Amino acid sequence: MIIGVLGLKGSYSEKAAKQWIKKSECPEKTILEYCADVQDVFSLLESSSCDIGVVPLENSIEGSVGITLDMFLEHDIHIIGETIVTIEHCLLSRGKKEDIRVILSHPQGLGQCRQFLKEHFPEAELRTTGSTSHAAKLATEFEEMAAIASPETASVYGLDIVLQSIQDRTHNHTRFAIITRSVIPENVKTCIKDQDVSCKTSIIVYLDRDRPGALYTILGEFARNNINLTRIESRPSKKVLGDYVFYIDFEGNISDAIIKDAIYNIESDVGMLKMLGSYPRFQF
Amino acid sequence: MIIGVLGLKGSYSEKAAKQWIKKSECPEKTILEYCADVQDVFSLLESSSCDIGVVPLENSIEGSVGITLDMFLEHDIHIIGETIVTIEHCLLSRGKKEDIRVILSHPQGLGQCRQFLKEHFPEAELRTTGSTSHAAKLATEFEEMAAIASPETASVYGLDIVLQSIQDRTHNHTRFAIITRSVIPENVKTCIKDQDVSCKTSIIVYLDRDRPGALYTILGEFARNNINLTRIESRPSKKVLGDYVFYIDFEGNISDAIIKDAIYNIESDVGMLKMLGSYPRFQF
Repeated sequence: MIIGVLGLKGSYSEKAAKQWIKKSECPEKTILEYCADVQDVFSLLESSSCDIGVVPLENSIEGSVGITLDMFLEHDIHIIGETIVTIEHCLLSRGKKEDIRVILSHPQGLGQCRQFLKEHFPEAELRTTGSTSHAAKLATEFEEMAAIASPETASVYGLDIVLQSIQDRTHNHTRFAIITRSVIPENVKTCIKDQDVSCKTSIIVYLDRDRPGALYTILGEFARNNINLTRIESRPSKKVLGDYVFYIDFEGNISDAIIKDAIYNIESDVGMLKMLGSYPRFQF
Repeated sequence: MIIGVLGLKGSYSEKAAKQWIKKSECPEKTILEYCADVQDVFSLLESSSCDIGVVPLENSIEGSVGITLDMFLEHDIHIIGETIVTIEHCLLSRGKKEDIRVILSHPQGLGQCRQFLKEHFPEAELRTTGSTSHAAKLATEFEEMAAIASPETASVYGLDIVLQSIQDRTHNHTRFAIITRSVIPENVKTCIKDQDVSCKTSIIVYLDRDRPGALYTILGEFARNNINLTRIESRPSKKVLGDYVFYIDFEGNISDAIIKDAIYNIESDVGMLKMLGSYPRFQF
């Protein structure tokens, strides 16, 4: 079974994939396929070059990974799991702190360390990479370069940990989605855990009616049935400013009658509803 | 009156500031103060080094500007206006298209041209700057560098427009907030337009009760009073993953009894409510 992950060896997505494989007790032999960016994970999945994809969804400091949400809308995918990775960003370099002029990372890595960078490296040039591990690989080129990445990445690329735990808040976690094509391949099915456990369901809705209370009507379906929303996130519809799609996560499984009924009722109230899947809720 | 704007000469924030000054028919003489990043606009405002700040809020392709939302929560500010700027990103350089190896822009600029970059410059190194205009200034250094910025920026920095209208969607707009300190300075008051026009109000709420339907209860206040929500956006509370604050914009003025009552009722249902202000709705 091939798993597409964001980044190179040592990336947080790789960590997420390994964590999920272990937790799900997946009996399949797995091979990791490293992708340059989030879009490539989706392309790989679409072309059947991988069976599962692991992509970052949201971070506790920097919020949603917009590109992942956009890809969920554009591609025919199914979420089969989630996993939460503890993030500990370090400043990795071949050089010393005082030599560093250029700092590389994924936009989320730079965002999670924004205050640190402003305080300690106000003059440094910031470069964006597709993943934190790619930043680490590039930082091996010159002593004046440093990457924001995991401590594990240091040994993978032969870099020194110049500064540890540099994110702006001590607690830093990223939630990853484990995705597959909407028609789940047979080999992946063996890795899907018993759904009798506590589950979450993810949907995308587009309210095409410009009327007061459209979102309220939808949330009413959840409230009336005591379904707990765990997340609601808006993204631009990209048609016109002020027009949004909503990404909603809630507790429960689509195979539960109560959830099925709520979705059925919501469907008649919205312009579009896309079911992303029900999956076991991550437990630490 | 001093107005703090994001970026250097030629930035989209400068354009937003000029647009707002013109529309509001502000009788005050204005001086623009250029800031390296969004945080600096807030610092300048807080230290009374400027009277008004102009910051990007959301873009129709790339969504919210997270750092601006975070600053709204952390600082004691008041929104007195909004303005919407049409964005037309161009690729600016001293060199030719085939020479370009490094592309610089604000993270939003890079995000709004993500597909373009992937198709036309898959190998280029992407560098993050505090503003698109700063990217243009840096791009003057080498022929192999290019900036994603407005066409007007080209002439400011003596760059050529290598490619025009490179954003991933034709329609591209950014909404800017016009902010001041919570105690509005006297000279700013002369620039605040008559609030009898169609208004919007912005608030931040934090629901500290982990119970189904908390958000629903709030939205009910708006729905029952036929108050039209124009935007609802979640941001991480930064305490723990899965904990959010909500940024809500709606039609109406806090001086209207119906809005005042709704806010009063909502306040008793949430852990925290921060009033950001009522301001005239932008009209094209």
